[in-house]
Amino acid sequence: MGRTVFVNGEYLDEKDAKVSVFDRGFLFSDSVYEVTAVINQKLVSWKGHTQRLRRSLRELKIKLEISDEYILNIHRRLLDVNNLEEGLVYLQISRGVADRDFSFPDPVVDPTIVVFTQEKSLINNNKVQLGAKVVSFPDLRWGRSDIKSTQLLYASISKQQALDQGKDEAWFVKDKLVTEGSSNNAFIISKDKKLKTRSLTRDILAGITRESIIQFSKSQGYIFEEKPFSLEEAKNSLEAFSSSSTTFIMPVVEIDGVKVGSGLPGKITMDLRSLYVKNIMKELI
Amino acid sequence: MGRTVFVNGEYLDEKDAKVSVFDRGFLFSDSVYEVTAVINQKLVSWKGHTQRLRRSLRELKIKLEISDEYILNIHRRLLDVNNLEEGLVYLQISRGVADRDFSFPDPVVDPTIVVFTQEKSLINNNKVQLGAKVVSFPDLRWGRSDIKSTQLLYASISKQQALDQGKDEAWFVKDKLVTEGSSNNAFIISKDKKLKTRSLTRDILAGITRESIIQFSKSQGYIFEEKPFSLEEAKNSLEAFSSSSTTFIMPVVEIDGVKVGSGLPGKITMDLRSLYVKNIMKELI
Repeated sequence: MGRTVFVNGEYLDEKDAKVSVFDRGFLFSDSVYEVTAVINQKLVSWKGHTQRLRRSLRELKIKLEISDEYILNIHRRLLDVNNLEEGLVYLQISRGVADRDFSFPDPVVDPTIVVFTQEKSLINNNKVQLGAKVVSFPDLRWGRSDIKSTQLLYASISKQQALDQGKDEAWFVKDKLVTEGSSNNAFIISKDKKLKTRSLTRDILAGITRESIIQFSKSQGYIFEEKPFSLEEAKNSLEAFSSSSTTFIMPVVEIDGVKVGSGLPGKITMDLRSLYVKNIMKELI
Repeated sequence: MGRTVFVNGEYLDEKDAKVSVFDRGFLFSDSVYEVTAVINQKLVSWKGHTQRLRRSLRELKIKLEISDEYILNIHRRLLDVNNLEEGLVYLQISRGVADRDFSFPDPVVDPTIVVFTQEKSLINNNKVQLGAKVVSFPDLRWGRSDIKSTQLLYASISKQQALDQGKDEAWFVKDKLVTEGSSNNAFIISKDKKLKTRSLTRDILAGITRESIIQFSKSQGYIFEEKPFSLEEAKNSLEAFSSSSTTFIMPVVEIDGVKVGSGLPGKITMDLRSLYVKNIMKELI
């Protein structure tokens, strides 16, 4: 017996967890997802994830009749049966199963719901001490990266290319400005200690962790600018980092072979990470 | 019993045709596909489809160990057991099943292979007599539309928006120039009877039907230009049409509410369609 996975109302062993080949998630990438961090068998920033999920579904006109509470119960039950202390819960919702056609199913079909857990060390993530080495790529993703869809092929290819080069992470660049990472938001800290991250447009995902960082860093007295920065600016910054639901705050120590700051995880970055972890521990549900 | 569907070596009833929720086609759109037309229970332009499939796989570094002949045999067996006279065979190959991670599975896993049939009237397609009304959309797809991947969400959304407006088809526009349709290549015929379609770049798919049309229209004495055209040029053209493996040549009679030519399927277009059908009948396998 492996993990238990939720598929359309059933709790199944992972080897039996399947979707139809006619699922529009498989055929058309017609689906959205969320990844929620788990600490002490509890969920991090749950409200933010459900709000963003609802927005993604609205943008794609996928009608999901089930309640947030029902989705929360699936998450909790999986944490329980899989005995997951730390890691993540992955949720994917597709438009559902229909004979293959570019147009949406008519009449509307029930969305497909898949939820599974993954073990992962989040708080004591070994990579944090080393920091991440970033490789930049032109941002060739579709024009609606604000929707958390499963059109992740380019992000996956780019991440793999970074790894093939002996590096850790991919950042995307559009018109010389950094958009975001393959699965995270990008931040820099300038030499005068101002924090900067790209403003929210259709080019980037509204990261839940990104929003938390903006809020608590302001409350800590940091000056925060939400505006685009260039790759050059990032290379010349004091510190840089990325944020995501499961890596929290990850120091970036190199960009395209150029050391950022001292080439070691930055002090402000590590302070922010500690603060972030403290903050989320207060609101686990 | 419904259709028989091929999934990873097995011939299954369509209700049992499933893939793992951990399939990278479902989680990351990490998969490619081909759609081959079927006439008289035989395949149209088979060689072109296998060549393009191999190119897509190479571009994504998906290693498929099975031979073209094996894939052809799957197609033929499905045509036989499903008794399909006219329609299409859909083939999708994903990178395979692995625990969710943006990086490629290491060690490499076996690709997932799914093949199914669909009935469709190809030669006597009722829509041809009316022609298609096209709505334009900014081309927000990813930057590698030359790879026939399943990242089809934007194409699907756009097609649906065109239908919602009482029209038939979506054409994409980038820098004021038409790239292609949601699942077809775009052509115009100028008032001096020259044919034009966009040249092959990373912005469009190298359509099998597109290539056939270029070859046989040249042999018929038409002047053919492979270069981009604007939406304005298309609206002011003598005739316009789209091409795809299963619609062959589809007259376009309206673009963004503006009639193309007389607003009826064009004569040259219909002649080309007849020629195309004659040509493919000779090389069915």
